[in-house]
Amino acid sequence: MKASQFLISTLKDAPADAEVVSHKLMMRAGLIKKLGAGIYNYMPMGLRVIRKVEAIVREEMNKAGAIELTMPVVQPAELWQETGRFEKMGPELLRIKDRHGRDFVVQPTSEEVVTDIARQEIRSYKQLPKNFYQIQTKFRDERRPRFGLMRGREFIMKDAYSFDRDQVSAKQSYQVMADAYRKIFDRFGLTYRAVAADSGAIGGDLSEEFQVIAATGEDAIVYCPTSNYAANMEKAEALVPAHARGAATQAMAKTATPGKSTCEDVAALLNVPLNTTVKSLVLATDTLNDKGEVVKSHVWLLLLRGDHDMNEVKVGKLPGFEGGFRFATTQEIDDHFGCKPGYLGPVNLKQPLKIVADRDVAVMADWICGANEVDFHMTGVNFGRDVAEPDLVADIRNVVAGDASPDGQGVLAIERGIEVGHVFYLGTKYSQAMNATFLDVNGKPQFMEMGCYGIGVTRLPAAAIEQNHDERGMIWPDAIAPFTVVICPVNMDRSEDVKAAAFKLYEDLLALGVDVILDDRGERPGAMFADWELIGVPHRVTIGDKGLKDGVVEYQNRRDSESTKVAVADVLAHVKAQLGL
Amino acid sequence: MKASQFLISTLKDAPADAEVVSHKLMMRAGLIKKLGAGIYNYMPMGLRVIRKVEAIVREEMNKAGAIELTMPVVQPAELWQETGRFEKMGPELLRIKDRHGRDFVVQPTSEEVVTDIARQEIRSYKQLPKNFYQIQTKFRDERRPRFGLMRGREFIMKDAYSFDRDQVSAKQSYQVMADAYRKIFDRFGLTYRAVAADSGAIGGDLSEEFQVIAATGEDAIVYCPTSNYAANMEKAEALVPAHARGAATQAMAKTATPGKSTCEDVAALLNVPLNTTVKSLVLATDTLNDKGEVVKSHVWLLLLRGDHDMNEVKVGKLPGFEGGFRFATTQEIDDHFGCKPGYLGPVNLKQPLKIVADRDVAVMADWICGANEVDFHMTGVNFGRDVAEPDLVADIRNVVAGDASPDGQGVLAIERGIEVGHVFYLGTKYSQAMNATFLDVNGKPQFMEMGCYGIGVTRLPAAAIEQNHDERGMIWPDAIAPFTVVICPVNMDRSEDVKAAAFKLYEDLLALGVDVILDDRGERPGAMFADWELIGVPHRVTIGDKGLKDGVVEYQNRRDSESTKVAVADVLAHVKAQLGL
Repeated sequence: MKASQFLISTLKDAPADAEVVSHKLMMRAGLIKKLGAGIYNYMPMGLRVIRKVEAIVREEMNKAGAIELTMPVVQPAELWQETGRFEKMGPELLRIKDRHGRDFVVQPTSEEVVTDIARQEIRSYKQLPKNFYQIQTKFRDERRPRFGLMRGREFIMKDAYSFDRDQVSAKQSYQVMADAYRKIFDRFGLTYRAVAADSGAIGGDLSEEFQVIAATGEDAIVYCPTSNYAANMEKAEALVPAHARGAATQAMAKTATPGKSTCEDVAALLNVPLNTTVKSLVLATDTLNDKGEVVKSHVWLLLLRGDHDMNEVKVGKLPGFEGGFRFATTQEIDDHFGCKPGYLGPVNLKQPLKIVADRDVAVMADWICGANEVDFHMTGVNFGRDVAEPDLVADIRNVVAGDASPDGQGVLAIERGIEVGHVFYLGTKYSQAMNATFLDVNGKPQFMEMGCYGIGVTRLPAAAIEQNHDERGMIWPDAIAPFTVVICPVNMDRSEDVKAAAFKLYEDLLALGVDVILDDRGERPGAMFADWELIGVPHRVTIGDKGLKDGVVEYQNRRDSESTKVAVADVLAHVKAQLGL
Repeated sequence: MKASQFLISTLKDAPADAEVVSHKLMMRAGLIKKLGAGIYNYMPMGLRVIRKVEAIVREEMNKAGAIELTMPVVQPAELWQETGRFEKMGPELLRIKDRHGRDFVVQPTSEEVVTDIARQEIRSYKQLPKNFYQIQTKFRDERRPRFGLMRGREFIMKDAYSFDRDQVSAKQSYQVMADAYRKIFDRFGLTYRAVAADSGAIGGDLSEEFQVIAATGEDAIVYCPTSNYAANMEKAEALVPAHARGAATQAMAKTATPGKSTCEDVAALLNVPLNTTVKSLVLATDTLNDKGEVVKSHVWLLLLRGDHDMNEVKVGKLPGFEGGFRFATTQEIDDHFGCKPGYLGPVNLKQPLKIVADRDVAVMADWICGANEVDFHMTGVNFGRDVAEPDLVADIRNVVAGDASPDGQGVLAIERGIEVGHVFYLGTKYSQAMNATFLDVNGKPQFMEMGCYGIGVTRLPAAAIEQNHDERGMIWPDAIAPFTVVICPVNMDRSEDVKAAAFKLYEDLLALGVDVILDDRGERPGAMFADWELIGVPHRVTIGDKGLKDGVVEYQNRRDSESTKVAVADVLAHVKAQLGL
C-alpha cells in the first residue's frame, strides 16, 4: 500500500470524551471515528487491525473443527420469547418493531437462533458433536457506553456454540475450544492469562475468561506466581484459614467512637490493626409468589473482616440466596438492630436474624464491631461468649494479595486485565428452554449439551493498545498491526536515489507477502515519524539521501529507543530477520 | 474439508413459500435457512459462496484504489435528518429508539455517514479523489420480502462512495468503478450485461446497472444484438419514427364497440391491427403549498399507441411532471371527458386539457380512439382535423423488440435480467445537503462531487442460480462455488483401495490450494450424487472399487450429462486442466 492511496488521518489531541489511553490513541491515530455514543466507524486503518484479528480467529476456529455460518443481526422476537430473554433482559437488549408492528431484537448474542438451527438440523447422535460460529455485528444498548471500542454499543464478536450428546463429550468440546483460544491469543502476540471464572448456576469448573493483562484493566485477576492457578475475582476462593480460632483474652466492652462509622476510622481511633475489626453487612432475600409479588422477606447479617470486601457472586451462592438478594432497607435494619448503619454489630440485637460469618471472621477472637448504638463500638467481642456462633461460615469475600493459593502451591497475587474472550459450558439451559433434542443411541430424545465461546473482535485491539503503548503512541504486535512495516523515504521528491531505494525495498517486501506501507505523502520527516509512532507500526525503515551516500538506511523497531544503521544491501535480509521470515 | 466435519443438509422438497428456483434450490441445498420474513441464516454451505463473492469484490475494489472501512449497522438519526431522508424514506427504513428514546436507523445504505466522514476528513483538493467502501449488513423493511435472498430484508451489500473535486474527475472515478465492476462480474463467471440506467434528476449518462441475465429476472433489459447498446427499460429511448405522418384518408366516424373497453378488444372487433388504435391515459399533477397541501391539480391526457405501454420514468421527466404525478380520479376524468375509462379519447372533450402524444402516436393518421361515450369508439381520427395537434410530443413509452436502436446501429432486442450491481454519479446532492466541502486550488470551499456504487453480495448467489441450474439442482461457476471439487468415494468403508485413492487425490488437491471436499459421510452413491448435483459443485471425481480394478476413476463436470473415465495416474492432471491450473 502506498500512503498516498490510503487514508492516514492523525490528530494532535484526543477528543475530550476519550478517557482511556486506547480510546485516545485510536481516535488520534484515525483507527476509529465516533458516530454516536458507543457507535464507531471502523476507519481504514482500524479495519485492517480488525480484519487481522478476524483472520486469526477464523483460521484457528476452522482448525478446531468449528463451522462458520452467519446469523442475522436483526432477529425475530419469537425465539427470544421461547427462552424468556426477550422479557428478562433489560434495556441492554435493543428492541425494534418492523413496519407491521412485529417485535425484533438486534442480536447481543445468538444462543436462541443457533439453538433453533441445531434443533432443526440435528436429529441423531451421529451428527454430534457440532460447533457453529459466526463473526458478526452485535449490539448492546449499554447505559453508559465508554472507553471507545472497550465498551461500545455496536461491536463485532466471534461467537461459537457447541452441541454435544452428553456431558463427557461437551467437556471435550469445551476443552477443544479452550485450547483453540490459547492458540489464538498466543498468535495475537499479547500477554494474557486464562482465568477460571464463575460458571453461574451450572457449577463445575467449565468457565474461563481470557484476560489481556493491562494496568488499566477493569477486571481484577487473581493468580499464583508459583503455580498455574489463575481465576477472576468473582471465582477465586479464599481458603479456610490455616489457624484455628484463638481463645478469648479480653472482656467485651463498649467504647465511644463518635462519628467513626467505618472500620478504618474505628481502627485508627483505637490504634488497632484493621484486621481486628469486623464489618456488619445487612442483606435481605425475598420470597415471591406466582405473580412476582414479595410475600416474605428474610434479613441476614454478614460479617466480614474490616480489611476484606464482600464478593457478591459468592454471596449469591449461599443457601437461601439463590433467588437473588439485596441490601436491607433502613426500616429492616432498624427493626433488627435498632440502630442506623455505621454502628451495627451482632451484639444486643433487637430482633434475632441469621448470621453468616466469613471464614476469616469465624476464626477471630477479641474483635471489634458496632454496638448497635450510634457513636459506640464494642471491643473484645468473641463468638460463643458474647455472640452466638454464626449460623453459617462461608467464603463470602474477595481474596487479597498474599492469601494462600487455593491449589496450595503458594500465595496469591492480583493484577488487572481486560476480558477479551470467554469459554463457557452452558449445559442444557437453552436446549431445554427451546426443546432442542436429538435421538440417542437408543432412539430416545435427549437435550443437547451446549457450550458458548466468545471473542470480542473489536475489543481486542483496544486491549492490545492498553497493554502496548508509550508516550508516542501505540505499539502493535506484528500479527495484528495495521501494517507490519513502514518505509519512510526522506525528501523523496528531491532525490531519485531515495525514491529508487524506497521503491525497491517496497517491491521486495510486497513480493514476500509482507504487509508494507510506503509513505509517499511527502510529509516532513518529523511529522512522518510522529504519525507512524502514533499509529504504532512495529517495523520502520527510514531511507535518506545522507545515509544512502554512506550506503546505509535506518531500521527502527517501534519498541526500541534507538535505530540501527543497516547497509543498503542488507536491509531486506535485516527486515526479514526481524519479521522471523 | 471433509464432509463429515461440515454441515451438509439437503431437503427433498422446497418449503411451500419458496416461489423462484434460486430460493427453492438454496433452501433445499441448505445454503440458507429462514429465520423470519426476508431474514435468513447464511448456513455454512451458503456462507462459503458469499465469502467468495466478497473476496472477489474486495480484491477488485482494492485494485481500483478504493479504501475499505466499515460504517455501523445502527446509525443515529441526526445525519439522516440532515438530508431529510429520515422523514422522506417510507417504512422501508427501519427506525429504532434506544434506551434513552433517541432515534436510530438500521442502515439501508450509508450515503449520510460516508458524507459525514468525508466532510470531516477531507479538507483540501489535494486529498481528492477518494473512494470509500464497505461490505456490510444492510436492512430494508420490504413490504413483501420474497424470493429468498433476491428480495430479503436483511442482506449484505458492498457500497462504495467516491468523492471528487469536480465533474471531470468525478466522471473518471465513475469510470474506474464501472471498469472494476466489469472485472468483478467477469470473474464471477456469469453472463451479465451492463446497461445504461436512468440517472434521475441529475441527468447525463452516468448510471449503469449490472444485470445477470436470467429468464426469470424481474427487469427487462434492452439491447442491440448488432451494437454495444444496452439499457434498462426505464432508460431505453424510443426514437422519433423514421416516417412522417401520413395524410388523412378516412372520415372520422363513431362506431359501436359495446363492452370493448381495451384497445385489444376494439382492434379485434373491428378487425384492424392493434397499432392503428390509440389508448388514452389520464394523469394528474398536483401543486402543493408549504404545508404540503394540494392547492391546485392539473389533468393531462397521454396518448399511446394501442400496442405500447407507458414508461413511468419517462413520463416523470415531462415538463410539469417533475414534482410527481398520479392517475386521475374518477371525478377528474368525468369532469374532462364526461365518460368513464375504457372509452376515452381526445375528441369531444367536456373540458379542455393538455395532450401529450407519444412520438409514435404523433405520426399516426386515421386512428381509432374512445368516443368519450360508453360502448363507442371513433375511427378515422386525425390530428389537425379532428383533434388539435398535441401540446407536447415526447417519448413516453417502453421500447419493444424490433424498435430501432438509439445508436442507429440496428434494432432492439429484449431479455430479462436480475440487477446485482449499480454504478451511479450522484453529483452534489448529498454534499450540498450536508455541507461537505473542501478547499479548491484557490482556497475556496466547494461541494464534493460524489458517486455511489453498489453490489448485492447476498443477491448475487441467487442471481447466479437463476442463470445456472437444471432439474437436478444448482450449477456454480468455479469462482463462487461453495466447493470447487467434490471427491465421492463409493463404499469407502469396504475398500481400502478406494479410501487410499480418495485421500491421495484429496491431499494432492489441497496441496494445490484447490477448495475440495471429500464426501466421507458413507452415504449410498445415489444419495451422495444427488446431494452434490443439488449443491452444484462444478467438478466431481467418483472413485469406486470396480473402476480402480480397471485403473480408472470417473470425472464429471456438473454441466455435462456424461462422465469421463480417467486413468488413476492422470486424474490429478485431468482435474487441474479442468480448473485451468
